[in-house]
Amino acid sequence: MLGSTGSIGRQTLEVARSFPDRFDIIALAAGGNTALLKRQISEFKPKFVCCRGKLAPPTGVKYERLSAEEMAAHPEVDIVVIATPGSSGLKPTLKAVKAGKKIALANKESLVSAGDIITRQAELNGARIMPVDSEHSAIWQCLEGEAGPPARIILTASGGPFRRYSPAQLEAVTPEQALNHPSWQMGPKVTIDSATLMNKGLEVIEAHWLFDMPFEKIEVLIHPQSIIHSMVEFGDGAVKAQLSHPDMRLPIQYALSYPERLPNPTLPHLDWQSISRLDFEPPNLNAFPCLRLATEAGEKGGTYPAVLCAADEVAVALFLKRRIKFTRIARLVETALERHQVITQPTIDDITAADAWARREVLKAAGDSPC
Amino acid sequence: MLGSTGSIGRQTLEVARSFPDRFDIIALAAGGNTALLKRQISEFKPKFVCCRGKLAPPTGVKYERLSAEEMAAHPEVDIVVIATPGSSGLKPTLKAVKAGKKIALANKESLVSAGDIITRQAELNGARIMPVDSEHSAIWQCLEGEAGPPARIILTASGGPFRRYSPAQLEAVTPEQALNHPSWQMGPKVTIDSATLMNKGLEVIEAHWLFDMPFEKIEVLIHPQSIIHSMVEFGDGAVKAQLSHPDMRLPIQYALSYPERLPNPTLPHLDWQSISRLDFEPPNLNAFPCLRLATEAGEKGGTYPAVLCAADEVAVALFLKRRIKFTRIARLVETALERHQVITQPTIDDITAADAWARREVLKAAGDSPC
Repeated sequence: MLGSTGSIGRQTLEVARSFPDRFDIIALAAGGNTALLKRQISEFKPKFVCCRGKLAPPTGVKYERLSAEEMAAHPEVDIVVIATPGSSGLKPTLKAVKAGKKIALANKESLVSAGDIITRQAELNGARIMPVDSEHSAIWQCLEGEAGPPARIILTASGGPFRRYSPAQLEAVTPEQALNHPSWQMGPKVTIDSATLMNKGLEVIEAHWLFDMPFEKIEVLIHPQSIIHSMVEFGDGAVKAQLSHPDMRLPIQYALSYPERLPNPTLPHLDWQSISRLDFEPPNLNAFPCLRLATEAGEKGGTYPAVLCAADEVAVALFLKRRIKFTRIARLVETALERHQVITQPTIDDITAADAWARREVLKAAGDSPC
Repeated sequence: MLGSTGSIGRQTLEVARSFPDRFDIIALAAGGNTALLKRQISEFKPKFVCCRGKLAPPTGVKYERLSAEEMAAHPEVDIVVIATPGSSGLKPTLKAVKAGKKIALANKESLVSAGDIITRQAELNGARIMPVDSEHSAIWQCLEGEAGPPARIILTASGGPFRRYSPAQLEAVTPEQALNHPSWQMGPKVTIDSATLMNKGLEVIEAHWLFDMPFEKIEVLIHPQSIIHSMVEFGDGAVKAQLSHPDMRLPIQYALSYPERLPNPTLPHLDWQSISRLDFEPPNLNAFPCLRLATEAGEKGGTYPAVLCAADEVAVALFLKRRIKFTRIARLVETALERHQVITQPTIDDITAADAWARREVLKAAGDSPC
């Protein structure tokens, strides 16, 4: 479990806690939240631990320190859950695919930046990438049992908290407002990305790699209630949708238990007495340019998606520190993409270099003209 | 193709026409519409024909006359499409299951009346019953690729044209109004059954037999747009739904091509630009007692469902002939069910006898006190 103290990490451990005979947590990796990590170690007694800072083992518990990459390839590991934020997911993901693991992938950025390399290596080494987010899990579930490829993927999006905002209102959005997502409880980076629709853009690129779908067959549809998590259309006109209460434990559990579904009464069930309508509308690409930027970067390929990811990560951090306005996130990402000298068939080193370049570029652009 | 000149029959031939290399129509059976049957014979050149009345073969076409039951068991037949109306579907369905055929079943009444015998015979003889209606096809599609049984089935219903009618308005409903369904083009019997919600009640019983689901796990949900054709909930809280434009050619084609899906550009695709919302509400069992009557008859079992079907068939015919009021349909069915002496483990003869008894009973009750 890489990223055990984050939102997905905590919920993964909650699922594991419901099925103690089925799941054995043998490795925990976390960042700076050592207090929580320590409690997790006491409860799950992993053999291996990875932690950024100092950590005194809880009394009576023994473990070995390993790096996240060592964990991802360790022979005792069956499923690697990768829920580390941003670009930190790339290297463990690569290790895990090369080791032929089952990978429950919650980190978007690795697949967005290096989708070509990761999917190729997964195929070569018999690794299976299982998405852990509600949209791609929905698509995956809808494709199960289907003999042929889909005609179209329809990614639903809540539209975020600012769906109806005017340009002037968007200019004035504060981090507090942006962190208050209407339907999902998530980490800060993905919550801001949901508010800009960058998150949906990254998901378009992910869907392209996960399901081998051309970009023109991937559509985004705003669905504010977040009940339908995505849909798949087939060549006969039939559409399959997966629905549930917005709760990340469901896609986490599906990935961990696949191809089985484990009955879990602690997960919420949809109550059709209280759902009187589901709404849909096309996304507003003018108000939310990140979705367009992401799709374009995905279509162009090469190092562009890595630049998109890295530029966005830095821009979101600047916004959360109140260094830039909400609407500047998209502009900074766009400028970085415009200035980037693309490498079309990049190696991992090219991707890492493009990532580093984009971070410097955004910091420089934001520093040159603050806000 | 049993029932080739009815609504499902015509649409089945339309699907067959789209895939001339894939489907060969070798037998056509129809009722009284000999003019259309003759045109169908000219086009599809079947080896076998069944027809109630006299029929002069079209010039240059040769065929053999067979009964519908002989067709249903004929060794040259691979798939039997059963789309004859009402109780006339029972005997050919039994023949087809005993002959181990693949059966695309559009006739509800046979499975409702004799679900126990039919599903048992199907299992014994390796027959496969493939539903041809939008709801059960949706459930079937949603269950494909799932390892375990569902936790719950949610049958959607348009609610018919009188969803919002007051009791006084329902009293005054004319056949013309009842035949004008808001979302589906269907034959007259099923259209009236949709308006009383008896159709949904029959579908609850069908779902019970087709998917081996206890009645308490089958729910009905009103969804006026008829875009979601039904849903299935699993033990982990995930729900799968199948959606499409309301067009019977899709479930027909799915049954004929299963487990493949055939790309068919003549079938309509959902246009999410024009779908802004989907609505849901619980059914009104007070205004539409047929749904409750059907579920109760299904739960009690034995010959009750046969009585339900036959009583409804006669009551609907009386309504269409303006002999009784719309609201009388449910009351006549209820009276027949109340007066019926049930046989709990019925044979086919018991079922046929219960059917005949119910028809007489309803005619008598309606004759005793017209309207």
